[in-house]
Amino acid sequence: MPTYKAPLRDIRFVMNELLGYEEHYKALPGGEEAVEVVDAILEEGAKFAENVLTPLNQPGDQQGCKLEDGKVTVPEGFTEAYQQYVEGGWPSMAQNPEFGGQGLPHSLGMVLNEMICSSNLAWGMYPGLSHGAMSALEHHGTDELKQTYLTKLIEGTWTGTMCLTEPHCGTDLGLIKTKALPEADGSFKVSGTKIFISAGEHEMSDNIVHLVLAKLPDAPAGSKGISLFVVPKFLPDAQGEAGERNGVSCGSLEHKMGIHGNSTCVMNFDSATGWMVGQPNKGLAAMFTMMNAARIGVGIQGQGLIEASYQNSLAYARDRLQMRALSGPKAPEKAADPIIVHPDVRRMLLTQKAFSEGGRALILYTAQLVDKVEHGSDEASKEADEILGLLTPVVKAFLTEVGFEATNEGLQIFGGHGFIQEWGMEQFVRDARITRLYEGTTGIQALDLLGRKVLMNQGETLKKFTKQIHKYCQTTSQQENMHEFAKPLSELNKEWGELTMKIGMNAMQNRDEVGAAAVDYTMYSGYVILAYFWAQMAEIAQKKLAEGTDEQAYYQAKLDTARFYYARLLPRTRAHAAAMTAGADSLLAMDESAFGLCFEV
Amino acid sequence: MPTYKAPLRDIRFVMNELLGYEEHYKALPGGEEAVEVVDAILEEGAKFAENVLTPLNQPGDQQGCKLEDGKVTVPEGFTEAYQQYVEGGWPSMAQNPEFGGQGLPHSLGMVLNEMICSSNLAWGMYPGLSHGAMSALEHHGTDELKQTYLTKLIEGTWTGTMCLTEPHCGTDLGLIKTKALPEADGSFKVSGTKIFISAGEHEMSDNIVHLVLAKLPDAPAGSKGISLFVVPKFLPDAQGEAGERNGVSCGSLEHKMGIHGNSTCVMNFDSATGWMVGQPNKGLAAMFTMMNAARIGVGIQGQGLIEASYQNSLAYARDRLQMRALSGPKAPEKAADPIIVHPDVRRMLLTQKAFSEGGRALILYTAQLVDKVEHGSDEASKEADEILGLLTPVVKAFLTEVGFEATNEGLQIFGGHGFIQEWGMEQFVRDARITRLYEGTTGIQALDLLGRKVLMNQGETLKKFTKQIHKYCQTTSQQENMHEFAKPLSELNKEWGELTMKIGMNAMQNRDEVGAAAVDYTMYSGYVILAYFWAQMAEIAQKKLAEGTDEQAYYQAKLDTARFYYARLLPRTRAHAAAMTAGADSLLAMDESAFGLCFEV
Repeated sequence: MPTYKAPLRDIRFVMNELLGYEEHYKALPGGEEAVEVVDAILEEGAKFAENVLTPLNQPGDQQGCKLEDGKVTVPEGFTEAYQQYVEGGWPSMAQNPEFGGQGLPHSLGMVLNEMICSSNLAWGMYPGLSHGAMSALEHHGTDELKQTYLTKLIEGTWTGTMCLTEPHCGTDLGLIKTKALPEADGSFKVSGTKIFISAGEHEMSDNIVHLVLAKLPDAPAGSKGISLFVVPKFLPDAQGEAGERNGVSCGSLEHKMGIHGNSTCVMNFDSATGWMVGQPNKGLAAMFTMMNAARIGVGIQGQGLIEASYQNSLAYARDRLQMRALSGPKAPEKAADPIIVHPDVRRMLLTQKAFSEGGRALILYTAQLVDKVEHGSDEASKEADEILGLLTPVVKAFLTEVGFEATNEGLQIFGGHGFIQEWGMEQFVRDARITRLYEGTTGIQALDLLGRKVLMNQGETLKKFTKQIHKYCQTTSQQENMHEFAKPLSELNKEWGELTMKIGMNAMQNRDEVGAAAVDYTMYSGYVILAYFWAQMAEIAQKKLAEGTDEQAYYQAKLDTARFYYARLLPRTRAHAAAMTAGADSLLAMDESAFGLCFEV
Repeated sequence: MPTYKAPLRDIRFVMNELLGYEEHYKALPGGEEAVEVVDAILEEGAKFAENVLTPLNQPGDQQGCKLEDGKVTVPEGFTEAYQQYVEGGWPSMAQNPEFGGQGLPHSLGMVLNEMICSSNLAWGMYPGLSHGAMSALEHHGTDELKQTYLTKLIEGTWTGTMCLTEPHCGTDLGLIKTKALPEADGSFKVSGTKIFISAGEHEMSDNIVHLVLAKLPDAPAGSKGISLFVVPKFLPDAQGEAGERNGVSCGSLEHKMGIHGNSTCVMNFDSATGWMVGQPNKGLAAMFTMMNAARIGVGIQGQGLIEASYQNSLAYARDRLQMRALSGPKAPEKAADPIIVHPDVRRMLLTQKAFSEGGRALILYTAQLVDKVEHGSDEASKEADEILGLLTPVVKAFLTEVGFEATNEGLQIFGGHGFIQEWGMEQFVRDARITRLYEGTTGIQALDLLGRKVLMNQGETLKKFTKQIHKYCQTTSQQENMHEFAKPLSELNKEWGELTMKIGMNAMQNRDEVGAAAVDYTMYSGYVILAYFWAQMAEIAQKKLAEGTDEQAYYQAKLDTARFYYARLLPRTRAHAAAMTAGADSLLAMDESAFGLCFEV
């Protein structure tokens, strides 16, 4: 069974040495407290992930969820783990004190989230979905809704869901058919079918708070006619506790490739009582409050799974004896060398390492932006929000794409054994596969990045970010030992702007050029952004090594990983740059009817 | 449930228009017969794949295999399908007439094999493993062994396995522990445990013929001390039929990520009676006869799965309505446009199409080499064997790597539905995942290509192949409409040689440079080789379009796919070229003990 140890050393490196989290927290209102508790949170979170969640991960995959008589049974131990999570006060950590929260910065929750995703992704989605619901209620709910629902969600005794998708529409929410009929008392009767509802039904919590997209009777067509409703599994009674059963039920559970421990439900709403969240027909905007946080959360899932896979493939690579190194035996006393001596095994390990650590830096940088948006001054908040908007689709798409690649490298290191369930490596791959899909596929993230975040304001936001990289390169290029990083980074950063301009010009002629370039553009952007963080990490390492440190091996490894990233992974930008500028014709020339002529004739 | 239609139009394009199969067959001894039966084989094979195997594929995945009281139960319908296969005379098609075969060229079997792999990979492995056993017996067995075992295998009433791997060794077969003790009567008592034995136990056939690697008591250490034995499940009786049970049993079935319909067994040999195949201590060489054919077979699996995935993702892309095209509605009468209008969906479809059709061309080219090795004149056979040796690891590694990518693109086109088992797209992904591992991982194929096939004879074999491409480019560059292909192909072909030289020079200083470059070198080679076939296919299409044809749409699609390949996939060579020349230091610099410092401290 796979093991997991929270990478506290590296999380601290990123927080303290790379991103100056102490100063960051001190600049936030009430941030002193965050500085005080960060160590306790890291250590307690690590214990929970290592000792409680990790042992439940493989059994949870094997047992899955069961639906009987409308009741969903989750894998053994999941409910108890959730109780421990609630008792530990984790759900309330980053929530509003007015409704029972501890008011700590969101970034702390994101640090914890990496550990949860590494140790048990399927379990993590039960509390994970509550975050979206809390976020929507916090920003768009009335005080009464907040008192009734947010308080319980923050307490953790109730959990939440996001009910968006219907059988005929996922990406295109303008097509939804779920209806909400207004009642005289201000409530609504919600009817319709929602699919792919993660944590849609279970008995881990006393009640489930569904955030549901539906249409009012007089709603305009399309995405401008969608409203958001809160629809609880049990209607709150006079004391605000779970009371009478509402008209919501789980019709069936999906049989999925992975995340078997999470109940993915078809949810039937049959004149269920609900209340509107936010304004009529503005539900999509309210939902996006949930979506953005959720998208970063899925990026963290990608990175967390890489870390988990890496730790286990590393252990195997050190243990498994097979063949001699081409350059001569490295462990002559053994029957063969451990496979970590083979360059190609190292290539796979380093790919995992570089994406996990680089991804962590990107995520925790994004986490600071989230803190600033929430707690910063108006101007700081606005500025952070802009960059956060730019980075969110990259975090989501890039880290899940490389997450799938890297968990597959982990499997590959095990050879044929990687294909066997017992070792757990194929579970990481199956679990990682969903991250490229939900909360908006890679293609959708890419359109968001290139279409909305970059081109819609003529690249102004991108310029702010590339300017930051440009300044960094200018400064560091004065250090000789940083040339190997600053020079290629500077060139790529410049090219990034040029490619953007080129695609933007083409898009003025033909809007399809955006869709034709978007995914390659997103992957390119991800590689450049990670290169920016790897340069900074290399700089810190170089400095430490020059000054002298009792952790020389740690900093040398950091520097070596940066070099690996620049030498072996960053050149992929060449392929993406060529593909994204190949033009829409290479995709659109073929007539739709001709795609199948090879087998239809 | 997924559907499948054998791509006969495209198979005929490759056989007749691209590779001149009629002339190829006519040049083989007895090849006239192949010309006569090829159509019947294509059409009967298509029916069998479409109507018999395809409907069993998804149920087979869901039912899996079961072991009870030493007996393995295969999914429903598998045994009956195998009986039909035997009754149809398929096992004997390309086998030696002396032992009951029809003596048709092997290439015909490979054409059939694509269809089997597309329609039901797990089922296909039951007869598939027999091929390896037949090949080893044919080339290395005594006449007596052939009469006893080969005849039955060719008839199909008995099936075969390859028993190589043991718990502690897969790649490194020199470490095997299975023992073979000589008996007075010339037989051997074989004892040991083998794992990952595909089709190791079942009751689909009357007997199972295990080809087992084991060590003689006085064998030299390592891979020079391995011998090959035939060990049947039932000892043949006086009539040559399955008689007394031998000391072979299935200890357990592996729980795998995919190919659930195939029984992957732990096989225990307990003083089982066996007979040596070939010379003592030369078992590895005899096994390689089986391995090379098996490796091409796995490449076909990769390509076959792409084709199956493509056909289903295309159907979905035409059917699923979601969003409007960025350039304006394409199906204004519908609620939304079919997703095939979106450029990124087309990018994924075309990626599948380009790899499937390009892969088919490469495979059927390789198939001609197999025919020539088997049936050609001494000189033609030797020449073919050399190029076949070069291409085999590329067929295996490249087509399974892109096979995994392309089946994942197929899943991705389905959005969240792709993750749901019902649609069958995730089964293609899970089934495809094994192909990167078994019969030698991608890393092992890459060492075979770069280390053995290319560098061991100073690139002489490679030169023969690049010279062929060079000549092709010279000729076609005279046609103006071929410039777009001939120019980039010619440049890459030249670069291929230069990169090889560079790595070869580095490897003289440090053997680890081979391992450090090998996988990127293999992928690079694959992209160039496919570009060579795509150029040829484009040339044929251009010619047909210029001449006029009543299949204009087919040839235009072929040309468009070639252009897509050159514009969007071929640029990946840039990333691989950079990575392969990055040097071994980027992989070996880090101290082994430092890999885990991020989480071990």
